Amino acid sequence: MQVYLNGSYIDSRDAKISVGDRGFVFGDGIYEVTRVVNGNFFREKEHLTRLKEGLAGLKIEADISMIENIPEISRELIKRNNHLKGEAAVYLQITRGTAWPRTHNFPDPAVKPTLYLSSSPFSPHTELHKTGVDAISVADIRWTRCNLKTINLLPNTLAKQQAKEAGVDSAIMIRDGVVTESPNANIFGVKDGVLYTFPATNYILSGITRQTVLEIADAQGIPVSFSPIRQEEIFNLDELFFSGTTTDIQPVILVDGKPIGTGKPGSVVKTIQQEYNKLLYK
Amino acid sequence: MQVYLNGSYIDSRDAKISVGDRGFVFGDGIYEVTRVVNGNFFREKEHLTRLKEGLAGLKIEADISMIENIPEISRELIKRNNHLKGEAAVYLQITRGTAWPRTHNFPDPAVKPTLYLSSSPFSPHTELHKTGVDAISVADIRWTRCNLKTINLLPNTLAKQQAKEAGVDSAIMIRDGVVTESPNANIFGVKDGVLYTFPATNYILSGITRQTVLEIADAQGIPVSFSPIRQEEIFNLDELFFSGTTTDIQPVILVDGKPIGTGKPGSVVKTIQQEYNKLLYK
Repeated sequence: MQVYLNGSYIDSRDAKISVGDRGFVFGDGIYEVTRVVNGNFFREKEHLTRLKEGLAGLKIEADISMIENIPEISRELIKRNNHLKGEAAVYLQITRGTAWPRTHNFPDPAVKPTLYLSSSPFSPHTELHKTGVDAISVADIRWTRCNLKTINLLPNTLAKQQAKEAGVDSAIMIRDGVVTESPNANIFGVKDGVLYTFPATNYILSGITRQTVLEIADAQGIPVSFSPIRQEEIFNLDELFFSGTTTDIQPVILVDGKPIGTGKPGSVVKTIQQEYNKLLYK
Repeated sequence: MQVYLNGSYIDSRDAKISVGDRGFVFGDGIYEVTRVVNGNFFREKEHLTRLKEGLAGLKIEADISMIENIPEISRELIKRNNHLKGEAAVYLQITRGTAWPRTHNFPDPAVKPTLYLSSSPFSPHTELHKTGVDAISVADIRWTRCNLKTINLLPNTLAKQQAKEAGVDSAIMIRDGVVTESPNANIFGVKDGVLYTFPATNYILSGITRQTVLEIADAQGIPVSFSPIRQEEIFNLDELFFSGTTTDIQPVILVDGKPIGTGKPGSVVKTIQQEYNKLLYK
């Protein structure tokens, strides 16, 4: 498999970055994951917009040309990896670059950011989309700039691992008594036909798939409330589901071993899934 | 300059890690910085103990031999870099290792962790220790496992950079209305002869230098209170100072442009500095 790293397409086994890269010593960078279906990049513009917002948020000074070249690089990469047919996912990461000596302050003058892209074949979790998944509730221990899609992902990996060790698929993170996100997806609840989700503040990542769900809800006449779901209300919900780039739309049927609604995927999530698939696979 | 990376001593310019290293894509690792004076490693045992606690905290499965070899590797490194005379700092980082494909869950089975060490000459901030430094107050936006010395350091780098852009030396981080830490040091206040510092909970890193300060306070008969300093109490303090491995003991004389105490380093911090230097340079 080939990857792109700082100007070159190389075998992933040869793709190496300096130990002085601030991505390695500080987690000082951002990332995006984009779905590709038969060569079509889904919501590419939205991912690039969020990428630029992330760079601005961390004050990473990437040349405009670096960003402008990303669509071309992405296409060349999936071509080289034979991902033009079927499904793939493209991972993109930009760090602040390599700087010596290691100092918390940004390098001054700024150094060239590191640009890394990889692509891999992707298999949607079709079975889970039908059956739904189980989750545990965990404390949301993240920092308070969750709106930035950074590679400071330890709390997310720890929560996901905690779920795995508990024998379930994912986790529902709780901060200040309300549901925020899963470690790698946004969360929606349904009660009496109304969709509930955490507002797009600094406490969640404003997911591209989340945005798509909101567009679908609007088109389908499903009312949306940006009132966070309180932890004690979880089991009063009719439905609960995750949304995310690699998660798609995934019903959550059990939390902490207890059923949500009927314990089966509900009608609202099924509608959202259908409409989402129409957009993704159009 | 040579560094140590996964079994080899190599030129720092040749020291490269895979783009699949979880340190690079998740910030999934821990680090330590140890001071070396004329070949003597200061508080080495304490650093190694904290390292082991960090590995346990993140469930990184490093072989016992990997940890046991660190003192020898460190010594070989400073020898190769001619840091046996004078002052140096040794940086050590362990990540969960390289794993494909990228998944939040830990690799299963576990992979070999990445071990990286570097050494560099060190110049103490002697002048700042005498004159004291200025700082701004910033929000402590970190996650809630600050007790782990991880490389998820974005909030720290952002706060340090914010200080630099404000024209001051460092920052004082405030969470829930109380002083927690600086981006790279612990904080102590002095009021009526009593030392105040944030208790060693999950909201601060339990610094090795902080621990040394507490030992000095004990030996000097300076009473210590682990009551956090409330933000509104900062300017009622007689003294304020930072403690850290590369910071040493540093008086803070101005916060947000307003003086602490007399606006000059006080008598308690001077006593602590003297006693600290006796231990460091003995």
